[in-house]
Amino acid sequence: MFHKILIANRGEIALRIIRACKELGIKTVAVHSDVDNEALHVKLADQSVCIGRAASAESYLNIKAIISAAEVTDADAIHPGYGFLAENAEFAEICQQCGITFIGPSPDNIRLMGDKIQARQTVIEAGVPILPGTEDNVPNVEEAVRIAAEIGYPVIIKATAGGGGRGMKVVHSPAHLPNAFAAARTEAEAGFGNPDVYIEKFCERPRHVEIQIMADQHGNVIHLGERDCSIQRRHQKLIEESPCPVLTPAIRKKMGECAVAAAERCGYSSVGTVEFLLDKNLDFFFMEMNTRVQVEHPVTEMVTGIDIIKEQIRIAAGEKLRFKQKDIKITGHAIECRVNAEDPVKFTPFPGKIQGYHTPGGMGVRVDSAAYDQYTVLPHYDSMIAKLIVHAETREEALKKMSSALDEYIIEGIKTTIPFHQKMMRNKEFVDGIDVDTGFLERIVL
Amino acid sequence: MFHKILIANRGEIALRIIRACKELGIKTVAVHSDVDNEALHVKLADQSVCIGRAASAESYLNIKAIISAAEVTDADAIHPGYGFLAENAEFAEICQQCGITFIGPSPDNIRLMGDKIQARQTVIEAGVPILPGTEDNVPNVEEAVRIAAEIGYPVIIKATAGGGGRGMKVVHSPAHLPNAFAAARTEAEAGFGNPDVYIEKFCERPRHVEIQIMADQHGNVIHLGERDCSIQRRHQKLIEESPCPVLTPAIRKKMGECAVAAAERCGYSSVGTVEFLLDKNLDFFFMEMNTRVQVEHPVTEMVTGIDIIKEQIRIAAGEKLRFKQKDIKITGHAIECRVNAEDPVKFTPFPGKIQGYHTPGGMGVRVDSAAYDQYTVLPHYDSMIAKLIVHAETREEALKKMSSALDEYIIEGIKTTIPFHQKMMRNKEFVDGIDVDTGFLERIVL
Repeated sequence: MFHKILIANRGEIALRIIRACKELGIKTVAVHSDVDNEALHVKLADQSVCIGRAASAESYLNIKAIISAAEVTDADAIHPGYGFLAENAEFAEICQQCGITFIGPSPDNIRLMGDKIQARQTVIEAGVPILPGTEDNVPNVEEAVRIAAEIGYPVIIKATAGGGGRGMKVVHSPAHLPNAFAAARTEAEAGFGNPDVYIEKFCERPRHVEIQIMADQHGNVIHLGERDCSIQRRHQKLIEESPCPVLTPAIRKKMGECAVAAAERCGYSSVGTVEFLLDKNLDFFFMEMNTRVQVEHPVTEMVTGIDIIKEQIRIAAGEKLRFKQKDIKITGHAIECRVNAEDPVKFTPFPGKIQGYHTPGGMGVRVDSAAYDQYTVLPHYDSMIAKLIVHAETREEALKKMSSALDEYIIEGIKTTIPFHQKMMRNKEFVDGIDVDTGFLERIVL
Repeated sequence: MFHKILIANRGEIALRIIRACKELGIKTVAVHSDVDNEALHVKLADQSVCIGRAASAESYLNIKAIISAAEVTDADAIHPGYGFLAENAEFAEICQQCGITFIGPSPDNIRLMGDKIQARQTVIEAGVPILPGTEDNVPNVEEAVRIAAEIGYPVIIKATAGGGGRGMKVVHSPAHLPNAFAAARTEAEAGFGNPDVYIEKFCERPRHVEIQIMADQHGNVIHLGERDCSIQRRHQKLIEESPCPVLTPAIRKKMGECAVAAAERCGYSSVGTVEFLLDKNLDFFFMEMNTRVQVEHPVTEMVTGIDIIKEQIRIAAGEKLRFKQKDIKITGHAIECRVNAEDPVKFTPFPGKIQGYHTPGGMGVRVDSAAYDQYTVLPHYDSMIAKLIVHAETREEALKKMSSALDEYIIEGIKTTIPFHQKMMRNKEFVDGIDVDTGFLERIVL
């Protein structure tokens, strides 16, 4: 097992990893930017190193400084968390070259799944259903028009290097294709330094359902069931839950098997997530694979009882999976609300000093947060300041527990998305859970 | 199901019950003394009623005021929590007479188990092992001398109306018996208004192990496994865990069956706890039955996943148990530390204003507390201000999780027992878990 892990991240996920390390008896090194010296991950780690200025590019994305920090503190592994360098194959490679274990998949895996066209090709080979569309970059608008006509409108144009919704364009008729095609390429170039795009059949009113997988370095792959992440605003997930309210056991099994097959096909090791679109007929289609731990991993932890971060560390240390597929039991229902320092109506960032902080507690209530009273939420980073997760016997009870926990949660001095979540827990359609899809939030009036 | 429940208690247990009610969709009424108007249970209940002055006798023990509050607010049930009126048969009877459901066992059950001699007789009839001793009040010192000689020293003298260690005297030789006998009677009279005492064989270096039971009004009784509560100071529990580190599956089964038999014998309904002494040979002996929910119920909730308070409410409403014995699975290990507003070395109360409060979080960490920043811990009531509970796969991991959670817990402005618990989590003997008994804390130097 590792002696000391450097956590190349900040906020709640840094804390999450520090806690897992403490329970595994592993020392921890926090890294931080100069504005983050009062951050909780710095206070709770055994050691900390300042790696640069506030701008992420100069600190949390500063590979040189992070590697130096690991070398200076004699860390034998680096956990990248999510975001920042978590899906940067070059970083994983440099870690390798420096004799430091990157706690995640191989650089090749990251690269493969980071390229949407290659990922698509890989999962096709694994027998995973995909939406009809191109398997390569679409070089020009004429080709785009031809392909769209072939697969039928509506179609969606996506950046091959993309993610998180950036560079995506939905087109409902041939008249709109040329402009959308040009715009998608421009956004892709600006966002990812690569203008390549591909075209897919657009799935209408899909749910976002993803499978958590876990694969060791010895060829064992299992899945931990699904998460429904359909409550999104501009492709940013806001509420996640497990199990998905509409999935049947048979579809769950099939989706899980597809995710495992995809991971097996590319010789994946570490934890990861295979994301699917689920349509009204409960047909599902591969979307992408995330080669890191996800923000919403706690809902899976709550329903399976498995500590995903600890297992990820064990896998990186070369241990065999301690569970077989038949050991995985889904118990009860878990929901996560992302509490962001944002205006709860406009969703615009609202950084500032927290002046009054009280977290909810009790049975089945979990708070993953690096916030505290008098802490200043910085404008430089992601606005998510806490994840409130509940676990109960049924979805109905989980919704009530969440509602009650949100009422108890006090964050003063800044605006947060708590009022948004409170409204959601009372929204009839969301509570019913059936007629929900990724466009839900754009359709409803809260 | 009930429409509205009045909670005849304060502090964390009042909050615990309010949370359960919210999840069951039941309205809540808080009652409070005049110094408790800033208490969290008052803030979180749907309604609140001031029932008298600070002194418990004038408020939380004021039956008339509590019944009036229930009538004024149209509550159809009263939850007594633990302590205060929770084991007061007269109160349960008055509730009944006023057409208000007392959420607990029948007055007869409370009375029977409250009388140590009757309780002993009942469990003997149920085939539960007891320590040799008298089954009746020992009227005079001559009789006491004769009995002690018969059962052999050491013996323990106990108040028939007693509990919590008050009125108990251990006697190692005949020379000390007369004084101890007189002292025990005096303490019993002073403490419980009844001087009656009985004599038992004194079990040396026992562990305190108790079984959580759950019985509905339809004759179904199950148990939820055991809790080890051996870490006590002057009979006050400080740390509890489940499962007990030394119990074998066979003894666990036998102990569970005994607890169920005791409850069945007296036609018990509600949740309750049968307490046993467990000696070095893993022989166990009935100690007493508590006819209420206990402070340490969360450790059982963590390992079984069952919400004991919700089930207690459902039982009181006449519902059938939703679980059979075979449904009860113990998963992982849970530990609870009682955080008291006390000097962590002398264990003397340390009331005062909390000036800085931050609770730990993350996977498997639960905080049950009514404390908050700027809250004033009052000298009038119990000094317990929080229960920190952790749940992990193994005892070893649970200990580490607790250690790390204690390190994260910040309570400023007053002294608390957190430093005591931090030392305990690093105490080799406690961590080993084998050579622990109820005298452990008096023997060791932390």
